[in-house]
Amino acid sequence: MDKNQFAKTPPMGWNSYDYYDTTVNEEQVKANADYMAKNLRRYGWEYIVVDIQWYAHKAGSRRAEHQYIPFETVEMDEYSRLLPDPERFPSSAGGAGFGPLADYVHRLGLKFGIHIMRGIPRIAAHLHTPILGSDLPASEAADPSSICGWNPDMYGVRNTEAGQAYYDSLIQLYASWGVDFIKCDDICNTNVYPTRPFSGKHEIEMLHRAIMKSGREIVLSLSPGPALIDKAWHYEKNANMWRITDDFWDNWDLLLNMFERCELWQNHVSQGCYPDCDMLPLGWLGKGFGQERYSNFTYEECRTMMTLWCIFGSPLMIGGELTKMSEPVLSLLTNPELLKLLDPAYRRRQVLRDRKQAVWSSCSPDGEVYVALFNLGDESGRVEIRLSELEPAYQPTALTELWSRETVTKSSVIGCEIAPHGCAVFRLEK
Amino acid sequence: MDKNQFAKTPPMGWNSYDYYDTTVNEEQVKANADYMAKNLRRYGWEYIVVDIQWYAHKAGSRRAEHQYIPFETVEMDEYSRLLPDPERFPSSAGGAGFGPLADYVHRLGLKFGIHIMRGIPRIAAHLHTPILGSDLPASEAADPSSICGWNPDMYGVRNTEAGQAYYDSLIQLYASWGVDFIKCDDICNTNVYPTRPFSGKHEIEMLHRAIMKSGREIVLSLSPGPALIDKAWHYEKNANMWRITDDFWDNWDLLLNMFERCELWQNHVSQGCYPDCDMLPLGWLGKGFGQERYSNFTYEECRTMMTLWCIFGSPLMIGGELTKMSEPVLSLLTNPELLKLLDPAYRRRQVLRDRKQAVWSSCSPDGEVYVALFNLGDESGRVEIRLSELEPAYQPTALTELWSRETVTKSSVIGCEIAPHGCAVFRLEK
Amino acid sequence: MDKNQFAKTPPMGWNSYDYYDTTVNEEQVKANADYMAKNLRRYGWEYIVVDIQWYAHKAGSRRAEHQYIPFETVEMDEYSRLLPDPERFPSSAGGAGFGPLADYVHRLGLKFGIHIMRGIPRIAAHLHTPILGSDLPASEAADPSSICGWNPDMYGVRNTEAGQAYYDSLIQLYASWGVDFIKCDDICNTNVYPTRPFSGKHEIEMLHRAIMKSGREIVLSLSPGPALIDKAWHYEKNANMWRITDDFWDNWDLLLNMFERCELWQNHVSQGCYPDCDMLPLGWLGKGFGQERYSNFTYEECRTMMTLWCIFGSPLMIGGELTKMSEPVLSLLTNPELLKLLDPAYRRRQVLRDRKQAVWSSCSPDGEVYVALFNLGDESGRVEIRLSELEPAYQPTALTELWSRETVTKSSVIGCEIAPHGCAVFRLEK
Amino acid sequence: MDKNQFAKTPPMGWNSYDYYDTTVNEEQVKANADYMAKNLRRYGWEYIVVDIQWYAHKAGSRRAEHQYIPFETVEMDEYSRLLPDPERFPSSAGGAGFGPLADYVHRLGLKFGIHIMRGIPRIAAHLHTPILGSDLPASEAADPSSICGWNPDMYGVRNTEAGQAYYDSLIQLYASWGVDFIKCDDICNTNVYPTRPFSGKHEIEMLHRAIMKSGREIVLSLSPGPALIDKAWHYEKNANMWRITDDFWDNWDLLLNMFERCELWQNHVSQGCYPDCDMLPLGWLGKGFGQERYSNFTYEECRTMMTLWCIFGSPLMIGGELTKMSEPVLSLLTNPELLKLLDPAYRRRQVLRDRKQAVWSSCSPDGEVYVALFNLGDESGRVEIRLSELEPAYQPTALTELWSRETVTKSSVIGCEIAPHGCAVFRLEK
Repeated sequence: MDKNQFAKTPPMGWNSYDYYDTTVNEEQVKANADYMAKNLRRYGWEYIVVDIQWYAHKAGSRRAEHQYIPFETVEMDEYSRLLPDPERFPSSAGGAGFGPLADYVHRLGLKFGIHIMRGIPRIAAHLHTPILGSDLPASEAADPSSICGWNPDMYGVRNTEAGQAYYDSLIQLYASWGVDFIKCDDICNTNVYPTRPFSGKHEIEMLHRAIMKSGREIVLSLSPGPALIDKAWHYEKNANMWRITDDFWDNWDLLLNMFERCELWQNHVSQGCYPDCDMLPLGWLGKGFGQERYSNFTYEECRTMMTLWCIFGSPLMIGGELTKMSEPVLSLLTNPELLKLLDPAYRRRQVLRDRKQAVWSSCSPDGEVYVALFNLGDESGRVEIRLSELEPAYQPTALTELWSRETVTKSSVIGCEIAPHGCAVFRLEK
Repeated sequence: MDKNQFAKTPPMGWNSYDYYDTTVNEEQVKANADYMAKNLRRYGWEYIVVDIQWYAHKAGSRRAEHQYIPFETVEMDEYSRLLPDPERFPSSAGGAGFGPLADYVHRLGLKFGIHIMRGIPRIAAHLHTPILGSDLPASEAADPSSICGWNPDMYGVRNTEAGQAYYDSLIQLYASWGVDFIKCDDICNTNVYPTRPFSGKHEIEMLHRAIMKSGREIVLSLSPGPALIDKAWHYEKNANMWRITDDFWDNWDLLLNMFERCELWQNHVSQGCYPDCDMLPLGWLGKGFGQERYSNFTYEECRTMMTLWCIFGSPLMIGGELTKMSEPVLSLLTNPELLKLLDPAYRRRQVLRDRKQAVWSSCSPDGEVYVALFNLGDESGRVEIRLSELEPAYQPTALTELWSRETVTKSSVIGCEIAPHGCAVFRLEK
Repeated sequence: MDKNQFAKTPPMGWNSYDYYDTTVNEEQVKANADYMAKNLRRYGWEYIVVDIQWYAHKAGSRRAEHQYIPFETVEMDEYSRLLPDPERFPSSAGGAGFGPLADYVHRLGLKFGIHIMRGIPRIAAHLHTPILGSDLPASEAADPSSICGWNPDMYGVRNTEAGQAYYDSLIQLYASWGVDFIKCDDICNTNVYPTRPFSGKHEIEMLHRAIMKSGREIVLSLSPGPALIDKAWHYEKNANMWRITDDFWDNWDLLLNMFERCELWQNHVSQGCYPDCDMLPLGWLGKGFGQERYSNFTYEECRTMMTLWCIFGSPLMIGGELTKMSEPVLSLLTNPELLKLLDPAYRRRQVLRDRKQAVWSSCSPDGEVYVALFNLGDESGRVEIRLSELEPAYQPTALTELWSRETVTKSSVIGCEIAPHGCAVFRLEK
Repeated sequence: MDKNQFAKTPPMGWNSYDYYDTTVNEEQVKANADYMAKNLRRYGWEYIVVDIQWYAHKAGSRRAEHQYIPFETVEMDEYSRLLPDPERFPSSAGGAGFGPLADYVHRLGLKFGIHIMRGIPRIAAHLHTPILGSDLPASEAADPSSICGWNPDMYGVRNTEAGQAYYDSLIQLYASWGVDFIKCDDICNTNVYPTRPFSGKHEIEMLHRAIMKSGREIVLSLSPGPALIDKAWHYEKNANMWRITDDFWDNWDLLLNMFERCELWQNHVSQGCYPDCDMLPLGWLGKGFGQERYSNFTYEECRTMMTLWCIFGSPLMIGGELTKMSEPVLSLLTNPELLKLLDPAYRRRQVLRDRKQAVWSSCSPDGEVYVALFNLGDESGRVEIRLSELEPAYQPTALTELWSRETVTKSSVIGCEIAPHGCAVFRLEK
């Protein structure tokens, strides 16, 4: 198995976090899967990912005080492995785990993913519960000095045989359920330790080894960001995607900042290796946070986000509730011309970026050229780039804008008037 | 009660750590107390301090792997409070705690101290055990994101009523045993979080409040160092002593570095407020570490250490095993002329320091002047200071060296030949 | 000579910067001196300090672009020493320097001070001009890698004989003029080098030596701040005052921040050693900056500033134009009861500080106790402190507020209602 | 003009610094050029680069004190532009500059390069000399707060029209001489300002614009390193090569560290964009430093260096004196199979790196695969890699080692015994 074959293009899917926070249940997951199968699958969308706390009893019940209730009980098997909370995921009862739900998703022609926290449950360490495949208990695999700063559930795992046995057993279980995608949190940047944010390095390697041993092609996604650019090779060696910023939400400053981060990581997109711009906070968000709202992004900002994520080559994970998607939002997610740009075989690069504008180009393996113009300013304005700055010898006959589908005739300059925070993205016709 | 009345001069005593590590037992504590009462008490030595892990079962039994065995059981009462391990402290059985041992020490005319870790036992949080005086369990007082980087026993305590109730109940229990001195660890500099080393600030305040409420004059000592100079006022407001370096051992580089730290803290010595140079690693050390050894310090270095600690005004805690003290070591600890300098009413200051030498002076409330000359270099050499640099109008008739008891006649320069790493300390006779 | 005898209490005076920026001239200096002699001298005010750029031709003529015109010519003698610009200081012509102006100030019973930049003029280094008392030219004393980040005039001076000769010759000249006070800039914190802010350490020592050699009691004041608390001993050894913040202006946030800085430095006030809170931006300010204005401080804030500076023991340098002082402003500067608190023999300390309030106490050598209460919040509110938190055994019969001169009868609590950003300061009557 | 066309493969040449320091003269440059033309040109070596201080009078004459004599005179034209010192470069007299020397080099079929310091001569700013093409003098283009920490000659240039005019005029002059390569120093990492190491950003842009305007294809090389990985896009946009470490010398620790740096920059090699591993300290070195010596690198270390530089795709600049090259050294520089790997069209990547070993692979555009095995340890040992870790589907028939020219038959593992610090590099035969 070669992990770079697991996801030949950036994974596209839906993730439960932005809408449900810690509270998502089986019925809700199925409803979103149904919607995806019906409306999005044919455009390449395929992952359904259950995010954080699916193992936690009473998740979300003390939301005003705690996002993650400290020391609350969790669903765990006899080998220190977390299982779905059967209250929220009834089909998991009796040891079935996420198997039935994964089957459901698979039957829709989709793939099934879950979130995990780096480490082994703290309670397992304190209770000295066994590890499958090891004579040593959880207390010997757990590192009591390695915690997550924002979630109280786990201890980091030591770089030992017992530790590897734990991760092996965990991935073996999850593979047996049919999991296709694992988003591991508190590992890409262990931010409770600001001076050693890569303290989870060995755990990334251990997870990679466990996946290879499992025999199942499980995409490995690392959170949270910002990933460390000086560890890029290590991420590329062991994982499929890694977050390049801290949590992304529907806020222009965060979107503006993403241009800087995409500049930084643009040379690091290749088959099986995807710097990750995080979920797309589109449509209805925030219900589980106690503040359900429609995305604060304007339509122009949404198009800018989609265009940047695609031309950069980021994974695409929808954050909003699918069953509440309106037609305009759906149209943002179903532009086939734009989604083609995700292909890592395209050569993409930032051509220009200053405070007011950014320009990106992308060139397909067969020589098709695309140019995206972004207005980063707060006022309408013309953004343009000379052809000579793109590909000196290239002479297009016309340009087609991918959002409007309008075609304009060629000139030596590609440019147009763009709304504040908006964009235009052109295919150059030969 | 005014905490600055609890220790009118820097505490002097013995601490079990340097010799016993985590393993000291009742018999050993008593033997050291007996020795102190017989040989040291009349010079001002009075504290007998039981250092770290007295509550831990099997402490020291896996020393090659762990100084502090993670997730090992601990002796704890029904209110989440740690008790002495009855295997090592038989008199504590049946709920007596350190009461009988404290009584023993008191009967010798000495005072009794213990070490605690900041926080509440992790196991108490995970088992939701009660807190005396609060309706909330340990899980509500514990902060799951606040740990110690080097000891796995505790969670930090939240700044809440439940948290204060826990500390109140803890100090109440220890006061009831007759504890006179508490060395709280992982609190002066919470070094697992290098960017927020004062994260235990509120716990220092909570401990201070708990001591005030207890009605017992318990000296509060904070570890580990280095204390933060920009928090000096806070330490002075809430504690009696605080470590100004990381752990000090019998190593010249550490002793040399202490001169720098004493320069930094010299203006912060006052009644009840003592920057702490840490234990004196004299005589036999290291047994509990599995490497029993005689102190690596030369006799000259020992005198330099004692002289600096005294003229600076540091607490004095003997680290070596008392029952194995030789006559020469004992003489280092029993120089009454030198020990007088500890008095915070003396005005001390560093007069000079460079790579080769340091000079300190001290002036008693009634105008007696002392000058210490230190040779910081690796070769013998003359160290001297002009009288005019000390106290312009001062004209001594003679000088008495406090270690040799020799007297020399006056001149305009105080100076002498000093061995490498050695010192001379003079009283200026009027 | 002992530098701690040069200023037995914190220097009090006027400085040209806050009103004139770089443009002050002889007539203006004299006018301010006249005013001080007539209205302020009897309260202890005595220094008249000419601040930055008195040597610079065309100073202030390109103010929109440059505060300090780069590469503009300067007035310099044949030994690389800067002289007053004769256009602005006509009496300095013909080699007289500031002698005549200093004489004028002295005749008024006042003292005369000047500002200098650390270093030797850049142009002197580039032209290889001589140094008095050295065979080597300025180019050998200048360190081409040591500059000021915000003023283009000087190179730092090397720690060599030629370098010391330059500083000796400089101070010798300024002493010959009758200078009583030198404010040396770019030396306390060499902030262009954020990772080595004490790069001027040797130049502080060289200036101190030069002053000692000069035979004249010249107060040495170091700027800009923030001074480095871990270098406190070095400042105390070589200088008389040092700035504890960056430039202070009439802005509440800066005043609020000064409470934090005073906490930090409170143990470092002693005779001849004064942590410096910077000029008092009172009355009319900013003319030379092209934005003449009345101080933005409210009357309450002014009293808070004066009270803090006094009870802390800071030097007091008036920043506003004296000739335009109104009666209310004058009254802030002429409260003899308050000014008494400056005496370094008083034992001052911060008793309490949180976001809403601060309390300081001070105790005179003969046992008089003062308490200042500050309302740091944006709303009126009661600030109080229990007597037991001050001096346990102290029992005053009454309290006199020093601004209002009102007396209240005693109680176990000292407190009153205070306006936002305001204060009350009480003398406790025995 | 497209700067990525100026150097389609990493520049290969000789640089005067490692042997001559600041002292190289015309005769010596010619001798090295002659040697290159005769012995190296046919392998692709073509640049002859005159390094630092060619404009400085008396360069090297006070070497014990100063590498760069502060405030010494320099050769400068009437427009503030530095010219070669005619004492060392006689053909430059009479305004010819480096024209005659460039002609000489060109006639040998080689290219000519020079070193410059970022900025405008300090003396020009202090003397207000003119700038060609601007009404403003040097003093208006110079930024008095922007200096180099280790060389005293220049001030940084402001981002203004006058500043651009200066750089334009400079490059225009150097282009008129026939300069093909400019190594600009103190610009890639302005290390005197550790907290703003990219303070020369605008000057990189100004130099790039000046080169574009000059109409001459001048390769732009930026020093010193370490370049900032988060500014990679900016370097790639404006320059041809940039140093990825501080100065590299013949020291194993530095060579070992280069593996880490090559890992970091491996995704940033493309046509016209070359992360630069610095000069090759081979053969005779150090004469100008007063310590002529044969390179400290063993023959194994030399091969490791050459192999890493080539497979990574670094520019190659010989540091040793060419006229003293021995046959074995020459053979290191003339391995055509190895030099082919420099081509940026090859896809290179680090396959493995730990403390003991590193493995790199490279794949040519037509599918030839190369594998380099490095023994990073201090003892001989086997280094190996499974074919499956390289290119899963690739099945070579045999392997040829490029240094020994030996061929071995295929297996599923590529590996061999390698001397300490040594390497082997294989071409996989289809």
